[in-house]
Amino acid sequence: MSVTVVGSIAFDAVKTPFGTRERMLGGSAVHFALAASFFDAVHIVGPVGDDFGEPEYAVLHDRGVDTDAVEHVPGGKTFFWRGEYGWDLNNRETLDTQLNVFADFDPKLSDAARAADVLFLANIQPELQQRVRAECRDARFVALDSMNYWIESARDALIKTVSMVDCLMLNDAELRELTREPNLVRAARQIREWGPRVVVAKQGEYGAAMVTEEGFFALPAFPLETVVDPTGAGDCFAGGFVGYVAAHPDSELSHELLCRAMAYGTALASFSVEEFGTERVARLTTEEISERVSELQKLTQFAEKPIALKG
Amino acid sequence: MSVTVVGSIAFDAVKTPFGTRERMLGGSAVHFALAASFFDAVHIVGPVGDDFGEPEYAVLHDRGVDTDAVEHVPGGKTFFWRGEYGWDLNNRETLDTQLNVFADFDPKLSDAARAADVLFLANIQPELQQRVRAECRDARFVALDSMNYWIESARDALIKTVSMVDCLMLNDAELRELTREPNLVRAARQIREWGPRVVVAKQGEYGAAMVTEEGFFALPAFPLETVVDPTGAGDCFAGGFVGYVAAHPDSELSHELLCRAMAYGTALASFSVEEFGTERVARLTTEEISERVSELQKLTQFAEKPIALKG
Repeated sequence: MSVTVVGSIAFDAVKTPFGTRERMLGGSAVHFALAASFFDAVHIVGPVGDDFGEPEYAVLHDRGVDTDAVEHVPGGKTFFWRGEYGWDLNNRETLDTQLNVFADFDPKLSDAARAADVLFLANIQPELQQRVRAECRDARFVALDSMNYWIESARDALIKTVSMVDCLMLNDAELRELTREPNLVRAARQIREWGPRVVVAKQGEYGAAMVTEEGFFALPAFPLETVVDPTGAGDCFAGGFVGYVAAHPDSELSHELLCRAMAYGTALASFSVEEFGTERVARLTTEEISERVSELQKLTQFAEKPIALKG
Repeated sequence: MSVTVVGSIAFDAVKTPFGTRERMLGGSAVHFALAASFFDAVHIVGPVGDDFGEPEYAVLHDRGVDTDAVEHVPGGKTFFWRGEYGWDLNNRETLDTQLNVFADFDPKLSDAARAADVLFLANIQPELQQRVRAECRDARFVALDSMNYWIESARDALIKTVSMVDCLMLNDAELRELTREPNLVRAARQIREWGPRVVVAKQGEYGAAMVTEEGFFALPAFPLETVVDPTGAGDCFAGGFVGYVAAHPDSELSHELLCRAMAYGTALASFSVEEFGTERVARLTTEEISERVSELQKLTQFAEKPIALKG
């Protein structure tokens, strides 16, 4: 079986307190694809320009990602983003956005991409997400990301898109903004009433929370002494989470399985931020992932023990 | 054995999106004492004025709190705070602070308070905290809170106080400010180099994280559909955490025991925010606490299962 991701392919320029990169491979579809590639075959769908060359394809091919549905727009330039992070990495400022070929993106899926059983709709225009979702008729699990721009400029279309998927993954501030509900538990309930059975709130350095029919689950971010570049962490989280689901084609999507998916998403996101852009995930090993998930389990578990409380 | 808490006793006026209270019992020592009273005998040390009467004492006495070291300042008025919370409860604005009798607070411990084996130094002037700490010679576990005001106006004195205690509990932004280190893992390491073997970062709606010699541990806040008033949640967390330690006088303070203390702190904080001020914790039952800790365990645990990752 396989996963298809539709989203941006980009060059990023970033400055963090730990250094700068003037031009590094990025984009939500790229970060997702590399993370998900540890779990299943991945098809990436997105547009690139003439500046996207062999070195960039090589990063994807080295992880076995199928790039047949990467659309090369002749004469075009690849989406470019420049940003800078503040001292605690929690605030970032966008200094430049050049949509370039991404401005007229009209996803064209290959047969293989269309036949995937799992689909991740990264942050693109909601109507395009709807069309791709409809095209992937056989997808048994579809997860969706979006951003404040679409919540503010196309809320109705976005809510319609939300109603067509199984899982919504947003930053918690975006979940609040979309539902107009400040309480996360209530926001998740509203989302579930719109359609998705799974709601994931990405909480940056605080980790992630999930709500399913069976209830709530939360994990902290993996504690790291050095966070170099948060760019792409949310997409790597999605790649680990959705990838884990894709790796279990014959299992019921139980709450328990999705809790483990949260753990793998958390692990992949934690590696992503250790270095710039895709650098760390591109040379990650399966052993490192398994070890981190084990460590994460240890640092989130406590054993109950009876205690005589004073009434 | 018993716990002593030194800190503020107050009347609070709050406005939240869910209602208002013009005058409710509050103060860090009060919230802490009520929460800790479920675990051990509690002595509360703090000043009150003539406006502090039988109804207020009754709330403390009903939970068995020893008020012998509550100092009644004749002709004085009790510390008063007025604040308002924004729609998502994460931002609060202080509208009025009247220190009143708290301005000249000079802690006078009773013999029983001085003999306690566990001590919580709530947020007061760092030199006063040092003096109380030195007075409680037999305390086997001393935990400390503070706030940005002291970090900014008395950093050296505060660091000296920190060096005299076993456990520092601060909001994570305050930990960063105190250590001038944006990374929480590094900030905790700096604190531990100053003296405390346990560092707890309170993270509001995201829960709390802890660092000990044995490593990192984190728990999310308990998910609630209705959060009415966050005032005092951090002190209730401290009361649950420190109270749990106090309830184990003969146990080594292992990482495992402190992880359970985090769970009880999280549970107490979650009840505190369900209603205004001390209202919910004042009528809490031991069964409710135990049940919430069990629920918390369920919604933070995942079972590992081997998976064949793709290298």
